[in-house]
Amino acid sequence: MPHDAALAELATFLGDRLARSKAERAMHGQNEAWFPETLPDAVAYPETTEEVARIVATCARHRCPVIAWGTGTSLEGHALAVRGGITLDMMRMNRVLAVRAEDMQAVVQPGVTREALNAELRTTGLMFPVDPGADASLGGMAATRASGTTAVRYGTMRDNVMGLEVVLADGRVIRTGSGARKSSAGYDLTGLFAGSEGTLGIITELTLRLHGQPEAISAAVCAFEDFESAVQTVIMTIQMGIPMARIEFLDETAAAAFNAANGTTMPEKPHLMVEFHGSDSSAAEDAQRFGEVVAEMGGAHFDWATTTEDRNRLWKMRHGAYPACIAFRPGCMGLVTDICVPISRLAEAVRETRADIAASGIPGPILGHVGDGNFHAILLIERGNEAELRTAKTLAHRMAERALRLGGTITGEHGVGMGKKGLMAMEHGEAWEVMARIKRALDPDGILNPGKVVEVNQ
Amino acid sequence: MPHDAALAELATFLGDRLARSKAERAMHGQNEAWFPETLPDAVAYPETTEEVARIVATCARHRCPVIAWGTGTSLEGHALAVRGGITLDMMRMNRVLAVRAEDMQAVVQPGVTREALNAELRTTGLMFPVDPGADASLGGMAATRASGTTAVRYGTMRDNVMGLEVVLADGRVIRTGSGARKSSAGYDLTGLFAGSEGTLGIITELTLRLHGQPEAISAAVCAFEDFESAVQTVIMTIQMGIPMARIEFLDETAAAAFNAANGTTMPEKPHLMVEFHGSDSSAAEDAQRFGEVVAEMGGAHFDWATTTEDRNRLWKMRHGAYPACIAFRPGCMGLVTDICVPISRLAEAVRETRADIAASGIPGPILGHVGDGNFHAILLIERGNEAELRTAKTLAHRMAERALRLGGTITGEHGVGMGKKGLMAMEHGEAWEVMARIKRALDPDGILNPGKVVEVNQ
Repeated sequence: MPHDAALAELATFLGDRLARSKAERAMHGQNEAWFPETLPDAVAYPETTEEVARIVATCARHRCPVIAWGTGTSLEGHALAVRGGITLDMMRMNRVLAVRAEDMQAVVQPGVTREALNAELRTTGLMFPVDPGADASLGGMAATRASGTTAVRYGTMRDNVMGLEVVLADGRVIRTGSGARKSSAGYDLTGLFAGSEGTLGIITELTLRLHGQPEAISAAVCAFEDFESAVQTVIMTIQMGIPMARIEFLDETAAAAFNAANGTTMPEKPHLMVEFHGSDSSAAEDAQRFGEVVAEMGGAHFDWATTTEDRNRLWKMRHGAYPACIAFRPGCMGLVTDICVPISRLAEAVRETRADIAASGIPGPILGHVGDGNFHAILLIERGNEAELRTAKTLAHRMAERALRLGGTITGEHGVGMGKKGLMAMEHGEAWEVMARIKRALDPDGILNPGKVVEVNQ
Repeated sequence: MPHDAALAELATFLGDRLARSKAERAMHGQNEAWFPETLPDAVAYPETTEEVARIVATCARHRCPVIAWGTGTSLEGHALAVRGGITLDMMRMNRVLAVRAEDMQAVVQPGVTREALNAELRTTGLMFPVDPGADASLGGMAATRASGTTAVRYGTMRDNVMGLEVVLADGRVIRTGSGARKSSAGYDLTGLFAGSEGTLGIITELTLRLHGQPEAISAAVCAFEDFESAVQTVIMTIQMGIPMARIEFLDETAAAAFNAANGTTMPEKPHLMVEFHGSDSSAAEDAQRFGEVVAEMGGAHFDWATTTEDRNRLWKMRHGAYPACIAFRPGCMGLVTDICVPISRLAEAVRETRADIAASGIPGPILGHVGDGNFHAILLIERGNEAELRTAKTLAHRMAERALRLGGTITGEHGVGMGKKGLMAMEHGEAWEVMARIKRALDPDGILNPGKVVEVNQ
């Protein structure tokens, strides 16, 4: 094996926390998307920053690739060891190191999941709101600049990561950011490493911004006759300055899939699912004003989830969208797309995408975080059917082209990984070469997550 | 002159928009801080991105420094041509290129000032909230990651710049970001260039995030017996989740300076100046809840600025703090410090700073954007008094050390420039070397704003 020397050296200090069994490698060679199984040479389970630094320094000497791994829920093959090497399973670094309630900050290791952090915060009156659906690791969420249902109110990981500890490609450890809410002290390295998908450094600690648990929450689901009315409702709500905590769109196919999976009886029409956070009076006022917009746009079947249980059921259903859609076409797998456009072009983007999907013959429910202009089509393709996979890839490619034509981006929240690398030049032009220069400057030997984000990263 | 060849070539296409007179060079050799006059070899007045690109490409060939200049209101000598070369006066690129109301975005050239943009937006129902006090250029504000009084609600330039057009060190033009509200498409170049102080590229266009003009605004000023009560009021207000649009602290010396400059009769005590934005009912509710906190903390002289005129007078007074303080000690100049700490350490930071200033014998009113943990001492030193300048620098240095000891940053919003470069290693350790590598990767010949931000930038 090409990396035997590196593995032998790593084993001297990791012992049985360097796993070389087929089973453990296979567990870290899977992905939730359509990329083929890709096994690393070994899986390392570090428990401290010092161990991560030592592993990376060792790999640097041997030019052995190092790929960070969280919960494995990425959708673009981010954590696949396409050039072999070591997968660094960060999930044993799963301690909440500090909760600074007065400063509304938490310091966590990268293997803490968002649900684990929120469980720890429950009695503090604080919460970490970023919610990509999956109970992903916070390190992985930072590395892919994740967002999800609440970004419209609370921002993405870009907005909620205040500082990082990072192991560089040569094994040195740096800290970025500070405990202050803002800083102008030089280049924004926190922002650079967040979203760098493990290609510039390995995140070993995060300082996160917390938010107050809202005093009151109101949530609702409502149906529309057509998707344009739903999208127009979103635009009007934004323009009226009604502060939504969540606003999710689902089309009629998604509604049907939700019904099938959950035994519900939603009308098979486009829907908005919405949530407001605030004081008792402001949440009620926001909900009332939103209701007026919905009525004006012809929305109906307006159901308020008044109890915590109802609300949890609502968002559990939304978070179960992916399996619900998959189950909707037996024997299928999903190719999940992810584009984001300016709000003013959202209706156009959805309309064209619907038409394109309809013409393809592949079922493709559409869901989205429409307050951000971000939506997904889940293309349901028969497992093993190469022709359908090709068709789905073509649809996804056209969605990306459409997003760019409308002033948007090829990925709102899923990241680049392997799946979107081929589209990066189209979005960024010469700026992609600037990214390549940064990659070379910070990882000259290209050991950090090769094959991802930039072309030079082979 | 060392850059004669470059200047001659630039003159061929800039004509009289390349100024070499002593007067124009001197106008661009000044600064609002204590740095000595530093003249560039010439001043260029580009009118288009293409001209900026051609100027930079020409300078790159001749290894001639290029320094971008906005309104000249920086406080850390950011735009001084310390190695000679060309000052690029960006103020003729002052057009608002687009206002996309539906997307709540504006596209502007870098020479548009924040007040000019807001004048243009007045009838749209939208506003650009970032407010550093000075009517600075938006390009300069982005380049220094400025913030100011409203950051507690609306964020800093980091949060409100969605995309940039940038001329690189070799004259190539790139675009960063997109019109979408979020993206995960690779490294966050927008965030990297914002705050890079013209050392990585020249900003030639900005896409900015706009916000709705609030339906209702309530503002107030109130006095406290001691600064601890004022700071504690801020902490409690934040923890109660009352959304402040502005919350400014001034100490008793600043209050006295305000009275002297404005003919007002504020009690010479620590004050908070506060503003709430929202709907009629929510702004009123926020103000009422804040009033309860103030009462609990023993605040008094609680005056609501109910009319627009009253409110404008209040913030005009706040924005006039610097000249008011300068006038408070005749014949003096100001050395303005700028640290930012976690809110929980704010009282400690202010207390120690007050004691240190008091012991020095130099007057030093303290003001701050305390909702962010950010505050300034304006050290009033006799013009030409070297001993006082040395003392003031020592006080400033100790403030920076204090900020770091308390988990904060050496600059919350003013940036690094020349003034804070010597402190960067103390804040960032090895991370400063990562910044240097990025600088070398993007500007290998070091022509962009030499002498600033990173050590390697000579």
